[in-house]
Amino acid sequence: MTALTNGGPGGAIVRIEDLDGFCRAALAAVGADAATVAAATAGMMHASRLGVDSHGVRLLDHYLRGLSEGRLNRRPHLRLLREHGATAVLDADHAQGALAAYTGMEHAVRLARAHGTGAVAIRNSSHFGPAGAYALRAAEEGMVGLAVCNSDSFVRLHDGAARFHGTNPFAVAVPVPEGEPWLFDMATSSVPYNRVLLYRGLDRLLPAGVASDEDGVDTTDPHAVAMLAPLGGADFGFKGAGIGGFVEILSAVLAGMRLSHEIAPMGGPDFSTPREMGAFCLALDPGAFLPRAEFEDGMRRYLAALRTSPSRAGGRVMAPGDREWEEAERRRQNGIPIDPATLDAFRRIADEYGLSLPLP
Amino acid sequence: MTALTNGGPGGAIVRIEDLDGFCRAALAAVGADAATVAAATAGMMHASRLGVDSHGVRLLDHYLRGLSEGRLNRRPHLRLLREHGATAVLDADHAQGALAAYTGMEHAVRLARAHGTGAVAIRNSSHFGPAGAYALRAAEEGMVGLAVCNSDSFVRLHDGAARFHGTNPFAVAVPVPEGEPWLFDMATSSVPYNRVLLYRGLDRLLPAGVASDEDGVDTTDPHAVAMLAPLGGADFGFKGAGIGGFVEILSAVLAGMRLSHEIAPMGGPDFSTPREMGAFCLALDPGAFLPRAEFEDGMRRYLAALRTSPSRAGGRVMAPGDREWEEAERRRQNGIPIDPATLDAFRRIADEYGLSLPLP
Repeated sequence: MTALTNGGPGGAIVRIEDLDGFCRAALAAVGADAATVAAATAGMMHASRLGVDSHGVRLLDHYLRGLSEGRLNRRPHLRLLREHGATAVLDADHAQGALAAYTGMEHAVRLARAHGTGAVAIRNSSHFGPAGAYALRAAEEGMVGLAVCNSDSFVRLHDGAARFHGTNPFAVAVPVPEGEPWLFDMATSSVPYNRVLLYRGLDRLLPAGVASDEDGVDTTDPHAVAMLAPLGGADFGFKGAGIGGFVEILSAVLAGMRLSHEIAPMGGPDFSTPREMGAFCLALDPGAFLPRAEFEDGMRRYLAALRTSPSRAGGRVMAPGDREWEEAERRRQNGIPIDPATLDAFRRIADEYGLSLPLP
Repeated sequence: MTALTNGGPGGAIVRIEDLDGFCRAALAAVGADAATVAAATAGMMHASRLGVDSHGVRLLDHYLRGLSEGRLNRRPHLRLLREHGATAVLDADHAQGALAAYTGMEHAVRLARAHGTGAVAIRNSSHFGPAGAYALRAAEEGMVGLAVCNSDSFVRLHDGAARFHGTNPFAVAVPVPEGEPWLFDMATSSVPYNRVLLYRGLDRLLPAGVASDEDGVDTTDPHAVAMLAPLGGADFGFKGAGIGGFVEILSAVLAGMRLSHEIAPMGGPDFSTPREMGAFCLALDPGAFLPRAEFEDGMRRYLAALRTSPSRAGGRVMAPGDREWEEAERRRQNGIPIDPATLDAFRRIADEYGLSLPLP
């Protein structure tokens, strides 16, 4: 949820359409098919537009490597293995994760249109990036959407001393009349790992209770961090670990895929073996429960009350997504900041595939 | 999730079957019908058996008052207002909340048996007590169950300075082969309000970041607490507030019922007007996604890895529910501790309705 940098020294500010075009060109150059190009770009651009830079175009280089070395299938044949009532199982054939997740949510929405709700377990997926992008796809179709995915171990259990769950994101989107969707996208860890890396670079102390050393002892020293703590801190980390576990059960157990501690590390060194990750999408059609106008009135009433609820001094109450939609509007006008490391990677990519850099 | 007291001075230890019988007799004496007697007792006894005393038999007096003064319907006619595909809307006719929630989950399980998943919005319910009890009902039928409910305002928003959401519990249960279900039941506040009351009585400081004074400023002084903070503390309270909001949207908006800040206070003074609360239940049939044996193997593998994951010094890793199932076993053998205030209420109830106290 954190923008790590602005364009800054050595970075750049890039127009949305140029950045989108560069991602497409690079993905096509590595041999990805049209569906992969479109979905991988849409997933990254969702995050880069909304200011979630950890899950934005900085991942382009990562996905290109997976596609070229074989971890990801450049021309996957996604197909439904099962469909039963309001549920389905999608085999993503080792597709790039955004293609798997968008496709899974599209099936969930289709099922919800017919049955009021739809639930889809996704098999043979991979790192799917920003969970909110796929929940949002449901909201764009008028549905409440939930998207979750487990990931390689990075978060200790409550009272644990080893990496166990991944950061296991949990995202929900809800359509809102006359406005952008309510959009909630969180890691079930206390902080994203990028926060640790940022503080390490700045030599700044972390907040208490968000990360631990290799013995599972909480530390505020970013250089000593060996694992993240679950959401809830020292006293209530069982809550974050429980939500992370719910994500794990939906994504890995119901999909019959790898548990977090069984998933090969995102960062390699092996980029040639598919990671066999699961994911899970759920869509609910509000119209199945009450007339659309009543649902819309409820969301209007809820958000009006929320946004006018008193703030404490120096703070501002916001609905989930408000901060991100505001950032998206700023970036639409001003462009998207690219950090120096990502810009370096873009230069390498442009050289390797004979592409123009997306610079003004 | 907190046992407030042991039997202690002025309290008592009561056998499970005697406590169950006393609840049934008292509910029947106030004129509740058989379904209400059974469900209200089952809800309270779930919590009292598992050590969640805040939601256990200490609520008997509260429910009796609601049933006798008209807030709760002693002889409700619960009926489905809509059924569409895998979804339904249950009108609980102002039933006691446990009857509404058990009935809602039973419909969700029925729908999931036919369609792989089932989602039920509940209208005209009331305080439903321990959310885990209703999620567990699904797990007992072999399903993954989710039960949520909003409640009267008690928790500020992230950066907020007023009570907004209720403690909005979120509960999930998952069947486990050869063992008790994985059972996760949390408030989306940082702490339960009972913790504040307990610390107030003990004149003990609260952990940082869990509660705020009337200006929304975090305080560790339990006497200054005017509202609870959302899960996540000072830095990440937007996560707890987001999950609380998801519960609010499912329970209140999809059910067309009151938002948390529109619900009359649980504690009265008005006990004669129905509170028009919503709730929401979801069931997923694992067998719709993969062969039952593979699902069971996944849960076995997950829990074996979790329970053998290294603990930090002085701690112990546990799966959600492990602590509660152990407490249930202790209480099965030793009886259930009743705190002095609840025992006083039991004495009044026994006097008023001519019942025997459930004492040895």
